[in-house]
Amino acid sequence: MQKLYLGVDLGGTNIAAGVVDGEGNIICKKSVRTNLPKPEAQLEKDIFDLCCALCEENGYDMKKDIVSVGIGTPGSVDGKRGIVWQNVNFGYTNWTLKENLGKYFEIPVHIENDANTAIVAEVVAGSAKGCNDALIVTLGTGIGGGAYVGGEIYAGHNSAGLEVGHVVIEVNGRQCNCGRKGCFERYASASALTRDTKAAMEANPDSALWKFTTDLEKVNAKTAFDAYKAGDAVATELVNRYIKYLSAGIVNLINIFQPEVLCLGGGVSNEKEFLLDLIKPYFDAEDYARNAAERTKITIAKFRNDAGIIGAAMLGVNNA
Amino acid sequence: MQKLYLGVDLGGTNIAAGVVDGEGNIICKKSVRTNLPKPEAQLEKDIFDLCCALCEENGYDMKKDIVSVGIGTPGSVDGKRGIVWQNVNFGYTNWTLKENLGKYFEIPVHIENDANTAIVAEVVAGSAKGCNDALIVTLGTGIGGGAYVGGEIYAGHNSAGLEVGHVVIEVNGRQCNCGRKGCFERYASASALTRDTKAAMEANPDSALWKFTTDLEKVNAKTAFDAYKAGDAVATELVNRYIKYLSAGIVNLINIFQPEVLCLGGGVSNEKEFLLDLIKPYFDAEDYARNAAERTKITIAKFRNDAGIIGAAMLGVNNA
Repeated sequence: MQKLYLGVDLGGTNIAAGVVDGEGNIICKKSVRTNLPKPEAQLEKDIFDLCCALCEENGYDMKKDIVSVGIGTPGSVDGKRGIVWQNVNFGYTNWTLKENLGKYFEIPVHIENDANTAIVAEVVAGSAKGCNDALIVTLGTGIGGGAYVGGEIYAGHNSAGLEVGHVVIEVNGRQCNCGRKGCFERYASASALTRDTKAAMEANPDSALWKFTTDLEKVNAKTAFDAYKAGDAVATELVNRYIKYLSAGIVNLINIFQPEVLCLGGGVSNEKEFLLDLIKPYFDAEDYARNAAERTKITIAKFRNDAGIIGAAMLGVNNA
Repeated sequence: MQKLYLGVDLGGTNIAAGVVDGEGNIICKKSVRTNLPKPEAQLEKDIFDLCCALCEENGYDMKKDIVSVGIGTPGSVDGKRGIVWQNVNFGYTNWTLKENLGKYFEIPVHIENDANTAIVAEVVAGSAKGCNDALIVTLGTGIGGGAYVGGEIYAGHNSAGLEVGHVVIEVNGRQCNCGRKGCFERYASASALTRDTKAAMEANPDSALWKFTTDLEKVNAKTAFDAYKAGDAVATELVNRYIKYLSAGIVNLINIFQPEVLCLGGGVSNEKEFLLDLIKPYFDAEDYARNAAERTKITIAKFRNDAGIIGAAMLGVNNA
């Protein structure tokens, strides 16, 4: 019989759960609003209730049909001990999530940082399939990172590593929420590009950027790329600067890790090959191993909106 | 009987060899000038001759008394396959060093990048003794890096990783030899501090920096620290700026790796506790895991000038 796994993507806006097969295909899924703030205990019950409803609606007996449940959550997570040390967005610290969920679930529970579940999905069944050494960099609200090193998730001795968004690429640069100045994510996240696009539109009322939306609230990371493709000068400058900073941060990680594959995920990665083509000249000029026989392959993450569910489910394959 | 290992530190200026015990103590050592440029074959013979002379002079029968010989060399090294992909300073590429030395030596030969041998020395018998996850950052002519991840040397899938000196910390910053602009080592290596000190002295003929040497050619990384300790205003500004950039690069690595221990080596690390005390405020303010229960310990590498010999020798312990 085909092995099936439950995966839960615990986000600040939605909790999404899915039943996933061993190849990373989602069989069925369901989500509810997270409705923060709420106490940990309530959120744990919400997760269990969602999984129960999903199984019931799709005719699965959880205990009989599902191998394990995996939870991907933001924050500093010790997957082995099952503890979320800190989740700033949720306002939780020292959250014994695995143990607490164990009171509800009768199948094994795995938890991991959500950036780590993303690299698990890519390595098990995605763009880095079969790699021992791979990275994912997600360009979203912030910039997240996940690493496979020597065939295992690597997150540092205290599980708080791979904060690749909080690498300073401009000393004395833009103020970051983390307390540092000049962090990578202040320049190269989807949010950063959105902010810069809005500022450029306000400063340039004649720019073609305005053709793509007349409502500043609807500007997103795609707006600048759309206007760039249409040849707008302001958007060209905007995207060129964005790519320069993005490439600096990506080549930094390559010079450190030299992974076999580096996957780009998150909203900006929807630009796919167009984005990769813009990064390539920087990579070819600045990769310290540019003359080596084997170089890192920069690619787009396979799993998109459902990456969180799939990666969380794959924790069961990984731990199996 | 006590196990003994040969270690060879292959530098651009000298080749240094030593007989080392399993705790990292050097029993005896000897060195010769490297005298570059020379063909690979000649350098290989020089290495073997040096080891033979060292053993003979100290009464060792190499085949009987020595477990293995380890070579630490600059460049991109695949330790497992025994190949130096590229050694820019020596002008070698695809150098099959392990195989070639195997024609001379009758004991096992191990080779590694010299920054990697440094972390091996610290993990086997030094400041990171027993750590599974540890980093070394050497502040010398450039900035080198070595990593232990999950109990093994990590250097990327192509053995060219851990080029921590070539992480951009200032986009559009100082031009680096590697082709990038704003690399960490342009601001925080011993050479960078020396260059900045000379420039500050030339611009400030009244600075107390001149009390420590009247000959610009004798300025080194220690000069600025000496004048800082004496209260000189120019040196204070110089050291404060140096520490700001050094800390930015170190905290970058900690936010990525969150190692148990990060060892500082190279010339600047001779400032020891004084250096650590200057870095600490930045680390405490900017470490992403500053509120975590377990934090990285930043420390001074135990092994100094002989670290290369000891680490190379310890490759035999590591592989034993």
